[in-house]
Amino acid sequence: MSRVRVHNFAVSIDGFATGEGQSLDAPFGHAGTRLHEWFFGTRTFQQQVLGKPDGSTGADDAIARTWNDGIGAEIMGRNKFGPQRGPWEDHDWNGWWGPNPPFHTPAFILTHHPRPSVEMEGGTTFHFIDATPQEALRQAREAAGDLDVRIGGGPTTVRAFLAEDLVDHLHIVVVPIVLGRGERLWDGLEGLDQRFQVESVTTPSGVTHMTYTRP
Amino acid sequence: MSRVRVHNFAVSIDGFATGEGQSLDAPFGHAGTRLHEWFFGTRTFQQQVLGKPDGSTGADDAIARTWNDGIGAEIMGRNKFGPQRGPWEDHDWNGWWGPNPPFHTPAFILTHHPRPSVEMEGGTTFHFIDATPQEALRQAREAAGDLDVRIGGGPTTVRAFLAEDLVDHLHIVVVPIVLGRGERLWDGLEGLDQRFQVESVTTPSGVTHMTYTRP
Repeated sequence: MSRVRVHNFAVSIDGFATGEGQSLDAPFGHAGTRLHEWFFGTRTFQQQVLGKPDGSTGADDAIARTWNDGIGAEIMGRNKFGPQRGPWEDHDWNGWWGPNPPFHTPAFILTHHPRPSVEMEGGTTFHFIDATPQEALRQAREAAGDLDVRIGGGPTTVRAFLAEDLVDHLHIVVVPIVLGRGERLWDGLEGLDQRFQVESVTTPSGVTHMTYTRP
Repeated sequence: MSRVRVHNFAVSIDGFATGEGQSLDAPFGHAGTRLHEWFFGTRTFQQQVLGKPDGSTGADDAIARTWNDGIGAEIMGRNKFGPQRGPWEDHDWNGWWGPNPPFHTPAFILTHHPRPSVEMEGGTTFHFIDATPQEALRQAREAAGDLDVRIGGGPTTVRAFLAEDLVDHLHIVVVPIVLGRGERLWDGLEGLDQRFQVESVTTPSGVTHMTYTRP
């Protein structure tokens, strides 16, 4: 059975995975770029997101780089896809990532307002579905074949899959900032750690990578 | 000026420094001993709390051991001192620590219900005061002379001193468990990190020590 994985998912020390006040100019609200500074300098981000040749190749990069290995489909929440809420005013918005998004697989966007699928450059196809975590995972697994499914975020979506015990590999990046407000990852997940083995490592950038895997 | 320090203060990955339901048998409520397993094996705990000769001497111990260096007084909240609430029914309770508590200095207990001071064995004297953080710190500094003052916990007390920007050295131990409920440390402290330099290190026990110091 293919695994369900979460990667490079940054949370503040007080447990927020995004700030308050998402907008077109502020995908993470008042958190700005503070949850992801550790990531921007890595070769993974520079190459796979920006299409540039350089970037750091230390532990942050090595850990970040595993995000796409063996992934056949992604599931994301609508708030990861864009800042719009409610019915779509038009179908012009195709995510924050430009014409060639870094996913290169089918990507299922959970929304109460489905719209036609969109085929992007580079192998990414956005599908818009109104589905439970279980049903979304069924569709994503079918699209992924033998490969794994990534839950891409945001916190509401990751939390929903964790609450249903559908995640096999959870990579969290703890950033030692106090955000104070936004969307919490951990709410309603008491005892989550008892279902997992945990490994933690702090890197020179100052973040701590925590990997929760099935025992 | 003497510094104000917090040491060995454990929080869950979701930000709780104690669980729900404190009682005589469960000082940390439903958290049980899970926030402090990293500490129990150290020589610091074995010697200074239990009076036993052995214990581990790795990084957890080295970091834990600094808690008492140069400390001249402690301030703690009443909920660290005991499970009672409201007016004291009697004055028989003198803390969880037996006749010779591990503090060996004056210790100021914040309570809305003052009672007479108690001199314990080994140099610890408990003073019960109804005071603001600033006033408590004034009294503790006077008692400490040139030495530092430790804020001993629990979370409500540490949070109150952090909110008033009275803490110079904050050592947090992040334990990768999801407690789900209890007393949160970080609430109301948005932007705290911007007043500090932060250093993090994960030890083989699986906890991450984070030290926030003044730049």
